[in-house]
Amino acid sequence: MTVGVLGGGQLARMLALAGIPLGRRFVFLEPSLRPPAGALGAVVRGAYDDAAALERLAGQADVVTLEFEAVPAEAARALGARVPVRPSPEALATAQDRLAEKQLFQQLGIPTASFRPAGAGERWEDALAATGLPAVVKTRRFGYDGKGQAVVRSPAEAEAAMEALGGELIVESFVDFDRELSIVGARGADGTSVFYPLTENHHREGILRASYAPAPNAPPDLQAEAEAMARRIMERFDYKGILAVELFQKGNRLLANEIAPRVHNSGHWTMNGAAASQFENHVRAVTGLPLARPEPFRPSAMLNIVGELPPPAALAAVQGAHMHLYDKAPRPGRKLGHVNVTAAGAEETDEIARRIWSLLPESTPMPAPSWQRDTPVRALAV
Amino acid sequence: MTVGVLGGGQLARMLALAGIPLGRRFVFLEPSLRPPAGALGAVVRGAYDDAAALERLAGQADVVTLEFEAVPAEAARALGARVPVRPSPEALATAQDRLAEKQLFQQLGIPTASFRPAGAGERWEDALAATGLPAVVKTRRFGYDGKGQAVVRSPAEAEAAMEALGGELIVESFVDFDRELSIVGARGADGTSVFYPLTENHHREGILRASYAPAPNAPPDLQAEAEAMARRIMERFDYKGILAVELFQKGNRLLANEIAPRVHNSGHWTMNGAAASQFENHVRAVTGLPLARPEPFRPSAMLNIVGELPPPAALAAVQGAHMHLYDKAPRPGRKLGHVNVTAAGAEETDEIARRIWSLLPESTPMPAPSWQRDTPVRALAV
Repeated sequence: MTVGVLGGGQLARMLALAGIPLGRRFVFLEPSLRPPAGALGAVVRGAYDDAAALERLAGQADVVTLEFEAVPAEAARALGARVPVRPSPEALATAQDRLAEKQLFQQLGIPTASFRPAGAGERWEDALAATGLPAVVKTRRFGYDGKGQAVVRSPAEAEAAMEALGGELIVESFVDFDRELSIVGARGADGTSVFYPLTENHHREGILRASYAPAPNAPPDLQAEAEAMARRIMERFDYKGILAVELFQKGNRLLANEIAPRVHNSGHWTMNGAAASQFENHVRAVTGLPLARPEPFRPSAMLNIVGELPPPAALAAVQGAHMHLYDKAPRPGRKLGHVNVTAAGAEETDEIARRIWSLLPESTPMPAPSWQRDTPVRALAV
Repeated sequence: MTVGVLGGGQLARMLALAGIPLGRRFVFLEPSLRPPAGALGAVVRGAYDDAAALERLAGQADVVTLEFEAVPAEAARALGARVPVRPSPEALATAQDRLAEKQLFQQLGIPTASFRPAGAGERWEDALAATGLPAVVKTRRFGYDGKGQAVVRSPAEAEAAMEALGGELIVESFVDFDRELSIVGARGADGTSVFYPLTENHHREGILRASYAPAPNAPPDLQAEAEAMARRIMERFDYKGILAVELFQKGNRLLANEIAPRVHNSGHWTMNGAAASQFENHVRAVTGLPLARPEPFRPSAMLNIVGELPPPAALAAVQGAHMHLYDKAPRPGRKLGHVNVTAAGAEETDEIARRIWSLLPESTPMPAPSWQRDTPVRALAV
């Protein structure tokens, strides 16, 4: 069975690395030359909305999935007429639009920040009346890694941000969260689902830098609440594959922030810290295999390698660390790989992670897991 | 850095699956169409002794390694003039010749069965006088999976076997071993080495069916003795890469049987039962990265899928089992994949392994690990 993937980046690469041992073959639709997934299957070169390229992909694949949300939902729908697309183009369409996403949360009774559409023809005063200040102004589409959004603290800032961002916008209450969490789960072809433990995430300049899993101090009821949210979303879409829900924790409350209808950076630790990774479970789900239950875990950390690659031999010399490189050319702000750390205890995991961090081209201290703090992590700049 | 591999079978496939996350690329020299490793790199089509093909491989690779011993040592030596070949062609040449192998054991003071060269121009009576009966008559070269050998219990059987096998032979004392073990280790570019725990192996019809690791009832001194044997061999060849030594255990004694200068079927369990697999450590060793220390393990079992592939969904439904398929067409006696099982305890591992075994096209009971027996495992037919 051949899996077609919309995109040939690092997520597609890791999907193939997990799927090939399951006997699956891969073909990637990708516009760029020499994509990270190129070593692991056939590549159809073309844009994600190139009808002829989509046609070629459909001709070579038994099922199609995606590695990121920038794929036009229309293209996914058109493909769906030829070959099963998993997860469904409807989940993709919702994840692409921050307004649709927030409305979905609302419809499903999933707590989220107050929000209001804004932009052309709408008065920013009305939006701010609903959300209060501070607020976050975001483009409805194509935001990623912190791009396309601004925190505003006054009506003047709000007006300036709306003008600068332009187009269709959404204004949301600023959540003064204690920490960011995510829940990653898979729903199989038979409708059953499995969930990884809550993961604690740390961003800088809008880019994920570090994840800790299982999230420290996350009691079972918090896990259950997060799973219930994800399950409701999955059921709404008759979802097949991995779904990630990004969450804010404020006290004992969880607020859903956004969904990713795909494998997610905050789930990369599962490659070494869980019995089966998110990549394996995604391939299982979209190709009709039963899901693998994530087993009890050792404490894991995941550190992204952003912008510059340290000498691989230095990374490889750190025992207890697992290197996952994407074979991408260095560029500021670009994710070039990640390192997973897993050890018998949280302290040991942390110590190994610090050794890795010291090799990364980061000028700031490692974002420490919240168990090391007296007070909960406060909101960093979004 | 690009790794050239002589061979494109399942071992090359798993080397690439482990090496790609380390940032390595792969090119395979392989005569057959659509080899198992073909999905994971470039393929130079050609025979292993085709000078032009070897030249093309050398032109694309920064270092060359091999996935099996059938590669002519001459070809490896010729390649070595162009590009580093790891492990060394001398280790390969020795592993290809059962006589040279046994002589090496003797020179290094490594216990092995009594042996004597035989064949054209030599009297079988002289060989049997040295080894006694029963004995095993083997071709010196190109034996694998139990092929090219015969157990003989009388002079008449010996004569018949020598005539049937023909060519250059070796006669060895038949070892009435308690069980078969193997030690798999890696030696890095810097001369340091790491070893996986002893593994207990069960063959049928000369084909490995099941491995259990760490080998039950293998005290630390047995492990130390096996490591010392492997280390002596590695040092002799300034070895770089994974080396496997197949051993017979008889009482408290270990006898070396043969070496494999490559990743080995009895090390496949390390993909799920160790912090870093034999494949990862082989790639680290041959590409100059520091080795990863194998961490403490949970009990693991490895079952080969031979001849026929059960429905993947049935295998995937067994929790705690990890499927590794090779994308090969079924054929009697052919290894099509393997399943690794790892769980918290030996009983649980065994229970899951039995569930997998019941799905395999095997008509015989699963070879049980020796901890389940009152008396040690007796020698099965070689």
